[in-house]
Amino acid sequence: MLHPDRLFPSDATQRAIARRLYAEVRDLPIVSPHGHTDPSWFAEDLPFPDPATLFVKPDHYAFRMLYSQGVAIEDVGVKRLDGAPVESDSRKIWRQLADHWYLFRGTPTRMWLEHAFETVFGVTERLAPDTADAIYDRIEDCLRKPEFRPRALFERFNLEVLATTESPLDTLEHHKTIRASGWKGRVVTAFRPDPVVDPEFEGFKANVEALGALTGENTATWKGYLAALANRRQYFKEVGGATSTDHGHPTARTANLSAAEAESLFAKALAGTVTAEEAELFRGQMLTEMARMSLDDGLVMQIHPGSFRNHNPQVFERFGRDKGADIPTATEYVRSLKPLLDRFGNERGLTIILFTLDETSYARELAPLAGHYPALRLGPAWWFHDSPEGMRRYREMVTETAGFYNTVGFNDDTRAFCSIPARHDVARRVDCAFLARLVSEHRLDEDEAAELAVDLAYRLAKNAYKL
Amino acid sequence: MLHPDRLFPSDATQRAIARRLYAEVRDLPIVSPHGHTDPSWFAEDLPFPDPATLFVKPDHYAFRMLYSQGVAIEDVGVKRLDGAPVESDSRKIWRQLADHWYLFRGTPTRMWLEHAFETVFGVTERLAPDTADAIYDRIEDCLRKPEFRPRALFERFNLEVLATTESPLDTLEHHKTIRASGWKGRVVTAFRPDPVVDPEFEGFKANVEALGALTGENTATWKGYLAALANRRQYFKEVGGATSTDHGHPTARTANLSAAEAESLFAKALAGTVTAEEAELFRGQMLTEMARMSLDDGLVMQIHPGSFRNHNPQVFERFGRDKGADIPTATEYVRSLKPLLDRFGNERGLTIILFTLDETSYARELAPLAGHYPALRLGPAWWFHDSPEGMRRYREMVTETAGFYNTVGFNDDTRAFCSIPARHDVARRVDCAFLARLVSEHRLDEDEAAELAVDLAYRLAKNAYKL
Amino acid sequence: MLHPDRLFPSDATQRAIARRLYAEVRDLPIVSPHGHTDPSWFAEDLPFPDPATLFVKPDHYAFRMLYSQGVAIEDVGVKRLDGAPVESDSRKIWRQLADHWYLFRGTPTRMWLEHAFETVFGVTERLAPDTADAIYDRIEDCLRKPEFRPRALFERFNLEVLATTESPLDTLEHHKTIRASGWKGRVVTAFRPDPVVDPEFEGFKANVEALGALTGENTATWKGYLAALANRRQYFKEVGGATSTDHGHPTARTANLSAAEAESLFAKALAGTVTAEEAELFRGQMLTEMARMSLDDGLVMQIHPGSFRNHNPQVFERFGRDKGADIPTATEYVRSLKPLLDRFGNERGLTIILFTLDETSYARELAPLAGHYPALRLGPAWWFHDSPEGMRRYREMVTETAGFYNTVGFNDDTRAFCSIPARHDVARRVDCAFLARLVSEHRLDEDEAAELAVDLAYRLAKNAYKL
Repeated sequence: MLHPDRLFPSDATQRAIARRLYAEVRDLPIVSPHGHTDPSWFAEDLPFPDPATLFVKPDHYAFRMLYSQGVAIEDVGVKRLDGAPVESDSRKIWRQLADHWYLFRGTPTRMWLEHAFETVFGVTERLAPDTADAIYDRIEDCLRKPEFRPRALFERFNLEVLATTESPLDTLEHHKTIRASGWKGRVVTAFRPDPVVDPEFEGFKANVEALGALTGENTATWKGYLAALANRRQYFKEVGGATSTDHGHPTARTANLSAAEAESLFAKALAGTVTAEEAELFRGQMLTEMARMSLDDGLVMQIHPGSFRNHNPQVFERFGRDKGADIPTATEYVRSLKPLLDRFGNERGLTIILFTLDETSYARELAPLAGHYPALRLGPAWWFHDSPEGMRRYREMVTETAGFYNTVGFNDDTRAFCSIPARHDVARRVDCAFLARLVSEHRLDEDEAAELAVDLAYRLAKNAYKL
Repeated sequence: MLHPDRLFPSDATQRAIARRLYAEVRDLPIVSPHGHTDPSWFAEDLPFPDPATLFVKPDHYAFRMLYSQGVAIEDVGVKRLDGAPVESDSRKIWRQLADHWYLFRGTPTRMWLEHAFETVFGVTERLAPDTADAIYDRIEDCLRKPEFRPRALFERFNLEVLATTESPLDTLEHHKTIRASGWKGRVVTAFRPDPVVDPEFEGFKANVEALGALTGENTATWKGYLAALANRRQYFKEVGGATSTDHGHPTARTANLSAAEAESLFAKALAGTVTAEEAELFRGQMLTEMARMSLDDGLVMQIHPGSFRNHNPQVFERFGRDKGADIPTATEYVRSLKPLLDRFGNERGLTIILFTLDETSYARELAPLAGHYPALRLGPAWWFHDSPEGMRRYREMVTETAGFYNTVGFNDDTRAFCSIPARHDVARRVDCAFLARLVSEHRLDEDEAAELAVDLAYRLAKNAYKL
Repeated sequence: MLHPDRLFPSDATQRAIARRLYAEVRDLPIVSPHGHTDPSWFAEDLPFPDPATLFVKPDHYAFRMLYSQGVAIEDVGVKRLDGAPVESDSRKIWRQLADHWYLFRGTPTRMWLEHAFETVFGVTERLAPDTADAIYDRIEDCLRKPEFRPRALFERFNLEVLATTESPLDTLEHHKTIRASGWKGRVVTAFRPDPVVDPEFEGFKANVEALGALTGENTATWKGYLAALANRRQYFKEVGGATSTDHGHPTARTANLSAAEAESLFAKALAGTVTAEEAELFRGQMLTEMARMSLDDGLVMQIHPGSFRNHNPQVFERFGRDKGADIPTATEYVRSLKPLLDRFGNERGLTIILFTLDETSYARELAPLAGHYPALRLGPAWWFHDSPEGMRRYREMVTETAGFYNTVGFNDDTRAFCSIPARHDVARRVDCAFLARLVSEHRLDEDEAAELAVDLAYRLAKNAYKL
């Protein structure tokens, strides 16, 4: 199924260059600085149970498409919050995927899954109603073997480092277990404080109290709250190997309030009396606080704004978060980031990596900002845009103003472990194709393109994330 | 003038694939589920009078370009509302077009017109000042012949079905005449209620009263008004063969008011005392009401937001609506559609087709929405974007998130009858070119591309619009 | 370094066409209707002092990239407002550029500079740490020779006309000197009234008083102020050869106030008591006043909205304006321009050239507006978008709705004199590549493309700017 020239331009000149560039990066180790795999996989190293549990139930890219075309979410085995029964026959779930495989034509999900089927499990036939069972059997057989356990796959995937993401309330037990185990695989955490810095997060007040309990700080006060966060960041660095923080706010709004204003706002947030605007302001202030702490402790800061989370209340009520109903929105950066940038934008010792779900901001706002401020870098094409066309548009709209060196390589950003090699391979191929076009149009020399290919595939991520 | 490979990529690999795919769809019948041709043409089957009346006077794509470069609208024979004289010599009008033909280089208008000139009228020379008269004569000669009458052209164009658009106040006389005539051509209407659901529409109150008179309902009450609309929808289904409704609101705003709130707002609208914001809210509520009725009667719902109508007051005062002075605006969907989607977005039995004039919403909002909600589908690239580059961008920005099967094939959306084959041909060619690129880059197998080509050209429209 | 086919598509069919089209335009004279070169260069004709002063210190494209990656602005010799010392060793500054040359891979800055190095100074090696000194020496040697003085370069660059930009408070001494000198080079000014029409401009009140002093009008009154502006426009026409005005407002907002309202707002602006909203309204009113004056005096009006100027307060305080910290913002045109267009949009005798830093407005707003209103034309891809990918997107998004003839050719818009031939060459090549694609896809005949190539490279600018 996988053509060796996939994703390369069909033009012979460009394809030849793309092949040469890709040869330089194909076998480089994978640096995965941002993602959502489950550290318990590597702590416990238990077999993945079956093909549907591995590939369908946890993959909202997959089941959102099925849902959009009339398949009930229950029918792909996603658990209901109310405990009502859902499909539990993994083979039936698998057949849902096979029956609707045509829906994924032209999508990255199809490309990622086929890459995993073939390179990880040796599947060489296209998924279809009449091949579903045989492919299911083959994958299921593999999963029973020790070489398909999480750690073995980690090594086979040539992962140099893999970052997970945890809440400050996480005690990092799995990360501790991994380290204590003597296994050489490098799995690090990232500090994702949304549950304790967003007044609108479910259970905010209780979360802040738990943060206090974990750190021994009095998080009922602004000062104690900040100290607890600083303390927890240190814990994530020391115990979980964290090199970065991650912030998933609805917008890129930042603020730079006086201590008194911030303190008063925090009290309101704890009291649950903030308005929507005040909650937004508080989140914005916390981004600036986090930047300040990053200057101290060196953690790289990632800002992931612009997702309208849980847009579908019916799906949210039945199944909870992260079920394919998060929708991007227009996102403004120039005015939103100004309070933070006014204070810290000129700091050479700070790295803030900006992401967007709004491609219109690439050339208009993000590349001009990152091409000026020393503290800013641009994250790769994200989420819905982490696709061949999306990655191509990203390079086309970002490079001329920000160059390549204000970008930070690739993030797979996935909870689908087996898709990690596929995603990095797609990124490497698309970048090589982009570079090949520049070379073929005599806008870049091939020796420089070859160096860039390695930078984009490997070095930039390692450097930007201090990995 | 028409090259057999027009609109195909010049790359030999891609072109060869595009040719093969196009061979599968070139001769498929045309399904035209949305447009603005005049049903009287097919009811009366009178000859089109002359080339200027056929091609210039009714085509705001054509005369807006002439106007932008200094040609008076009067000089192309468009009637003034005040009855002041305008150019009546069709040959002179035709020469205006010929003299300014160079303005249309690189535009779809040029491509559509040349396609019609050559395939319908056998013209093989480029329009120019020195060929204007000969081409005029040739087309005029043709128009006198029976095989150039509307019904004959309908058949020659291989139209399987053609939808027109009518106001609820239309009695569908022409549609009745067509059906009564025994002619086999299938012409259906679509229900376009803007005049009776938009408080800012010219004559809203009188329109609502007329709706009451037509249906025997008391449209002075909210309940009677809704009943009248439901009644009229049924009439459009039964008498006009309608399978869809169409809604041309300034924005995508929807609302989900209580019956009491809606009733009170309706009373204000009738009284003419709504503010601009209330008018907007009322339109938004009516979209939700229409969705509710669609669940009952099965009519497919089309939402066409984002046009700032009649932007040029001088042109509007002199010539009225639809004179090339409608300008797209930025259009938000994620928050705007939420009230409607919260209520009906998960209905598998409902089809809402979304259009946009704001291409930034394709990848950011529309593809993510349509790739999740069962009730949503995406209409094709619309109006200013119904062009080779516009259609290419549409596929590039929509496919990776929504796939092909959350789209609904092509709409020609035209009042220019002779351009219908040209427009469908352009869409088929551009889609084949897009698919050919995917195949050439090994992102899609050719057997799947061939099936998709037929889906995009024919099946998706038939299915989505229940035709 | 410069390949003869640079920027042409690699596809053999397209490349062959692009070469033929480019052969038609390569040697055409340069018409530069909008830019920011210093007229004193041509008045005094003194040698440019050294490579760093010529290429690095004044080029915010160059030093913003260095700054974004940690190089201090002081270290490239940009003067501080407080007089604190900055790097004064030009060779050291040059080495900063050479050491960081890799940052510019894939950027237009790299392309422009390499074009100047090779075509103006005969440099044939790539800039790098180990070639920096030799290249510096070569350029420095050249600069000492008479054939590298400004006027000689102007002639060598085949500049038919070059426009600079001056404030109404400028007395145009350099322009007078040029004219009095007997030198045949045509250098004209453009009228840029921002300092006297923007209440938020530094020193607005004093500027308006100075305007009164220059013109003998009582600029403390609205009537006198307007008379002074009209007077000054006339002066710019007569003394400086101006054919255009230029307006760099934060937004595209226009207004059409009554004389009484405008008068009252002007009084507030002079008194320094306008709110931000009133300042915006006043600027909007002044655009409309300028359009009215353009109808009288024939000056072509350019509107350049959408830059958030001086975004970085630390850089602004230390180094002042125009230091690479201007960031584009989302810009709305449809509602913003309506007051002006309602009044003057249908005037055939008026030319208003619109620019944008927000590419989303190309297809959505600007092409539809310019494809309708007789008074409107579209300026070329601007600033951050004046790049191969930016120019390609511009043609792809503008042409199908506005055609080519509602655009006005190329602006180099630069203060970097030696980059002028490079920039025009890039524009010519990108346009030829775009036309070649249309020809290769049989969307345009080659004879028409050849005519268009000359129009885009030369005639449209000459005509639109009345040069």
